[in-house]
Amino acid sequence: MSVSILGTYHSKVGKLEDKTIYELLAEAGRGALADAGVTGKEIDAVFVGNFAGGQFNRQEHIAPYAIEIDKDLRFKPCVRVENACASGSTAVAQAVNAIEAGKAETVLVIGVEKMTSLKTSGVTGVLATASYYPVEGEQGYTFPGLYAEFAKGYMAKYGYRVEELYDTLGLISCKAHKNAMSNPLAHMHVEYSHEFTSTVSEKNPIIADPLKLTDCSLVSDGAAAIVVTKTEKAKALKDKVVEISDIVQASDYLSIVEGKRSNYELTAAKYAINKALGNTKLTIDDIDVAEVHDCFTITELLIYEALGLAPEGRGRDALLNGDVYQGGRLPINLSGGLKAKGHPVGATGVSMHVLIARQLMGEAIGLQAKAAETGLTLNIGGSGATNIVSILKRLK
Amino acid sequence: MSVSILGTYHSKVGKLEDKTIYELLAEAGRGALADAGVTGKEIDAVFVGNFAGGQFNRQEHIAPYAIEIDKDLRFKPCVRVENACASGSTAVAQAVNAIEAGKAETVLVIGVEKMTSLKTSGVTGVLATASYYPVEGEQGYTFPGLYAEFAKGYMAKYGYRVEELYDTLGLISCKAHKNAMSNPLAHMHVEYSHEFTSTVSEKNPIIADPLKLTDCSLVSDGAAAIVVTKTEKAKALKDKVVEISDIVQASDYLSIVEGKRSNYELTAAKYAINKALGNTKLTIDDIDVAEVHDCFTITELLIYEALGLAPEGRGRDALLNGDVYQGGRLPINLSGGLKAKGHPVGATGVSMHVLIARQLMGEAIGLQAKAAETGLTLNIGGSGATNIVSILKRLK
Repeated sequence: MSVSILGTYHSKVGKLEDKTIYELLAEAGRGALADAGVTGKEIDAVFVGNFAGGQFNRQEHIAPYAIEIDKDLRFKPCVRVENACASGSTAVAQAVNAIEAGKAETVLVIGVEKMTSLKTSGVTGVLATASYYPVEGEQGYTFPGLYAEFAKGYMAKYGYRVEELYDTLGLISCKAHKNAMSNPLAHMHVEYSHEFTSTVSEKNPIIADPLKLTDCSLVSDGAAAIVVTKTEKAKALKDKVVEISDIVQASDYLSIVEGKRSNYELTAAKYAINKALGNTKLTIDDIDVAEVHDCFTITELLIYEALGLAPEGRGRDALLNGDVYQGGRLPINLSGGLKAKGHPVGATGVSMHVLIARQLMGEAIGLQAKAAETGLTLNIGGSGATNIVSILKRLK
Repeated sequence: MSVSILGTYHSKVGKLEDKTIYELLAEAGRGALADAGVTGKEIDAVFVGNFAGGQFNRQEHIAPYAIEIDKDLRFKPCVRVENACASGSTAVAQAVNAIEAGKAETVLVIGVEKMTSLKTSGVTGVLATASYYPVEGEQGYTFPGLYAEFAKGYMAKYGYRVEELYDTLGLISCKAHKNAMSNPLAHMHVEYSHEFTSTVSEKNPIIADPLKLTDCSLVSDGAAAIVVTKTEKAKALKDKVVEISDIVQASDYLSIVEGKRSNYELTAAKYAINKALGNTKLTIDDIDVAEVHDCFTITELLIYEALGLAPEGRGRDALLNGDVYQGGRLPINLSGGLKAKGHPVGATGVSMHVLIARQLMGEAIGLQAKAAETGLTLNIGGSGATNIVSILKRLK
């Protein structure tokens, strides 16, 4: 059984003061149905990826709200899945399973998060509940603090000096903001100089040593949706078809500070990448474009190494030799990524699938990768505990 | 593809002051693995049903914690699903999909909730986030209040007098408490007279008119787990095998007070029941035992009618003629149900699967249904928005 994408939708990402979580969910769902050219009648199930609607919006149990998208969704199964910032890709994976199990032919997947309902301190507190709370959140760790553990672990492992780290992470931040300038849906449209992003300053303070403000992704509202169906059906209905060739999830210990897993590499992300490439009989050089989980710039650096774009400890090379820029070996986060496109957490994984599908169709939202036929998404939850990789391929 | 239950575990239900959500999850997972006779090595995926760990325990993203059960679960996909009080059955359904899709052979499903971390008012507030919050929870509706809407709707529709309602609901409450006396894991071991449960009194006050204290299920901590696998594998490994012949989910509009769906019947539950019976070519008379969602006594009354045990408006008949008692046509909630066994919300659906599997194996936890070969579970989320029915069948 092969599953393909029949339709996509991506909302504006940002502080969307006039939109509730309900409106964002419905906008994305309706948008994807319209793009797919189907109605609720043809949808057999709905999966909603949402991280913390209960805490952000006092709304758990949001999946059945999808019936408001189209009354013909009534009596269909509506399911919410949650895996922190990887909730969206987790929803896509369950949708693929439902089709491959023969339980559904066509499925609507929506990722949504409305974060700006709370002030920054409140958001930080909610995000901390994606950590292993008794050992991390409750002890004062924030997510910048948890990823700072990786930055410190990386420096210690490879004898990296802090100036070198600032320089490298500054390049990643610059790239994100530059790419986002072309993405009309991005949260931030501001270009930064490398001097600014690589230097601690009043306007670029340390958030969690050694991570600075320009190393951290944004608190955003947003939603994205895809309609997936059997590939044979997609081929019959559409001129351009992108298949989800494989989707692999690998989980790891919840906590980074407990020391049960590496603090200088994304071990389970690497595992998932290698498994997905193996399953699809591809190498990293077959991948033409990728959207990966740059919740912090250090995360993107570790992902270069997990992808095999550079040797361990040399992720910086992928920047210096231009690999990860538009026109390079493997353009990464042409959308601006979580750093500049924004990171409405439950939406992010679905957003990545929309962005790569549109790249492969030659209809990029923002910068377009040249002649891209095969793409990859990597969505991470927590400090690396949940990792989901999809390989997408243009079939026609 | 056919999926069967390889192992089960059910924790004590109650105010478990000495157990955290982590300990409950691990206890249930380890218990089910031991009962199945497998280790983490043989488990291909883990699904966790949990309603509101973020709000009750400051822990979203709890699924990867499952790796603590057995380190060989590392790198396997761990997924949390949430559908209010039907989170547990939703997790079972995704596990079945994963196996039927060929993505997994053997899967661990855990349902868990730790509710007594908050005081009653806090719990009521969290539960309200399973309603359609802007229209219900935020307007002061509690879950007793939402199900009181059904009680009022039922009285209005069928010209039921309040004394008649009290009398009927009192019988359901008595049955639950009597059954729970035999269940060593039940939250409450207290028998009530019908006079007590059918009468408003100081000790049995109105909670949400016309529902009294004895009409409401309990706030509980607890966990349950099952290991599911391909039926052929279960048959090879076990002397007694219970198959999940079908699992059907039907969603409905989130809100009951908005009036978009019936307030005198559980329309989508009925739909799911009929679909599951149709898919398995069974009638209600083929079902020997059932665990159904008696979050309130009025819910169980409506379920009698949704099951077709009694005509619409005459659910009371199923009590008067003894149908739903031990030894009757279809014994319902021999465990004591949510009313007396307890209702740790995310665990409840998995608990139901454990209880029915054990009934069909002749190893009931508590009262045993005689010669039971086929059983049914009905798990409901919110005020009837999520509805999941499983048909379980003893194969050998």
